[in-house]
Amino acid sequence: MVKTIDWTDGKVVMLDQSRLPIEVVYVECENYLKVAEGIKKLWIRGAPAIGIATAMGVALAAQDIDADGYEGFIRKLEPVLETFLATRPTAVNIHWAVERLRAFLNRRRNETVQKLKELLIEEARKILDEDIQINRAIGLWGAQFINDGDAILTHCNAGSLATGGYGTATAPMLVAREQGKKFSVFADETRPVLQGARLTAWELMQEGITVTLITDNAAGALMKRGEINLAIVGTDRTVLNGDVANKIGTYTVAVMCKEHSIPFYVAAPLSSIDFSIPSGDLIPIEERGSEEVTHIFGTLRIAPEGVQVRNLAFDVTPARYVTAIVTEKGAFRPSDLKALARGDADIEKLRITLKK
Amino acid sequence: MVKTIDWTDGKVVMLDQSRLPIEVVYVECENYLKVAEGIKKLWIRGAPAIGIATAMGVALAAQDIDADGYEGFIRKLEPVLETFLATRPTAVNIHWAVERLRAFLNRRRNETVQKLKELLIEEARKILDEDIQINRAIGLWGAQFINDGDAILTHCNAGSLATGGYGTATAPMLVAREQGKKFSVFADETRPVLQGARLTAWELMQEGITVTLITDNAAGALMKRGEINLAIVGTDRTVLNGDVANKIGTYTVAVMCKEHSIPFYVAAPLSSIDFSIPSGDLIPIEERGSEEVTHIFGTLRIAPEGVQVRNLAFDVTPARYVTAIVTEKGAFRPSDLKALARGDADIEKLRITLKK
Repeated sequence: MVKTIDWTDGKVVMLDQSRLPIEVVYVECENYLKVAEGIKKLWIRGAPAIGIATAMGVALAAQDIDADGYEGFIRKLEPVLETFLATRPTAVNIHWAVERLRAFLNRRRNETVQKLKELLIEEARKILDEDIQINRAIGLWGAQFINDGDAILTHCNAGSLATGGYGTATAPMLVAREQGKKFSVFADETRPVLQGARLTAWELMQEGITVTLITDNAAGALMKRGEINLAIVGTDRTVLNGDVANKIGTYTVAVMCKEHSIPFYVAAPLSSIDFSIPSGDLIPIEERGSEEVTHIFGTLRIAPEGVQVRNLAFDVTPARYVTAIVTEKGAFRPSDLKALARGDADIEKLRITLKK
Repeated sequence: MVKTIDWTDGKVVMLDQSRLPIEVVYVECENYLKVAEGIKKLWIRGAPAIGIATAMGVALAAQDIDADGYEGFIRKLEPVLETFLATRPTAVNIHWAVERLRAFLNRRRNETVQKLKELLIEEARKILDEDIQINRAIGLWGAQFINDGDAILTHCNAGSLATGGYGTATAPMLVAREQGKKFSVFADETRPVLQGARLTAWELMQEGITVTLITDNAAGALMKRGEINLAIVGTDRTVLNGDVANKIGTYTVAVMCKEHSIPFYVAAPLSSIDFSIPSGDLIPIEERGSEEVTHIFGTLRIAPEGVQVRNLAFDVTPARYVTAIVTEKGAFRPSDLKALARGDADIEKLRITLKK
């Protein structure tokens, strides 16, 4: 399986995704500043992956701390945490990892400094393992929707590269493959940043899964020709009523799926579901700079100088277009997220389980 | 108005579209071989535009022919015609222009060689003028669908650059502007070849029309936000039942328009309607090489080496998604093309005319 980050021989090793697919370079980070640089420069991206990188970076920094006891250790660790929080200020998973480690240490005030250093390595590795387990569970619940001979459409990259392993949208594919199913994947190139062309196509090729790269424009025509059987995408944020925010173009994929009676699945770890937001209309949509549209890789200009641009980075797919939301606890109808949120639901009953 | 080709001071002057939008270079062709080179190397593209270029190239070649009479003149002109036919073998309008000039000359066997040379220049200019008149008529029939304050979506380039002037999809915009209407245009960038980013955005900026460039992925999200009021596209070939073949991605635009109750108009000179084909299913769809998808401008690689690609160049939009087909004779419901084809229809009755 494609490894985006790991802890090896006392170092953090990360794949430099910014050079993909032209070069495959693993960076060995011997100190935490290198890990922070990797997050800042997008060598590593994807919400779960940067959470893992943060935890590993903190554990790495801890090894070099010289302190007599808990208080001194924490005092010296604090600037490290601040460094990571400053790398990508809006990245929720960096905050999540920092808070998790703070609470973890707070519960271990009586340990020796040496023991704290060991425990932080263990905890960072545990964060990685937990992510892999969550994604594998998404894969197990999602693989039932993949049949022999299917062609699956995916959009953007919600693959192993964005996570500790398995990915989210790709997890059902990897599990289906383990189950011996034969299928192929169409990867939308996903303009403007081309994550589909650069990352998804690359990682599926590494996994030995048959993948065909298409322009975003071609997906609809292929659906009309009957060449796509289902779509699986990831999500940046799914909300209480089942509306799904994801990379720009996802909404169009979902509408086209509905028009052709093709099931549209969203792979969403429970951590990506924001039960505090009632409806997708309330999700703020980031609009990014024009250069992503007017230039390729920031260097090659493809549009007139001075042209006006609208660059919506995400869109919201209303729940009515979503066949199922596949989490680590099961696949659910989007309308059932409310019952899940209440906590008193019978999960067994809500789960979508296909009889084969 | 943006001029893609003209006859000036005994020369054929063409805009080198292959360098747009980076450089704006007009090439002065002093002999027909230069004109043929321009067609071959895509300095000029768009069905009507290359028909005009062919006629002007032939007229240019004729000026240098030394012959005593009609037979000798024709004999020396024949290799010129063959040269143009070989530039882009599948381009219907090159054949159309060559056949029109052959028939034109055949009816003038008694003219002097000097007179034939003058007549060919006149006829080439007439072909240009007729194209402009046809497009302007499309604009007059189409402008009724544009209201003050509208935002219009267009896909690919069916603009002045592809024609003698006015364009087809852009003609209603240019006429609406002449009528004093205020509106703006969203131009889909149109992957893989980026005609929207390179050509449509550029030419609308030249015309002083407010244009905003978007990725193809963003159009659906903008429709959902209520930011698009209508769509106008061109067509490569429209057939008897009203199905429309056009650049890949057009079908997706049409489905998204229907989903949002946005009218979807196709600007189609009658010459682009093939009444001999009963249904869009019978239109052969060209699939092109992978390099258009894996590389930008053939130079910058954006996808993994060796990745499999499907590159459908066109798609077919079924008539049920088309609000109206706007021709030089009027705007018609796609279901009324059959009546038009029979020739006994009352065009006045079939025309869509909005009461304002």
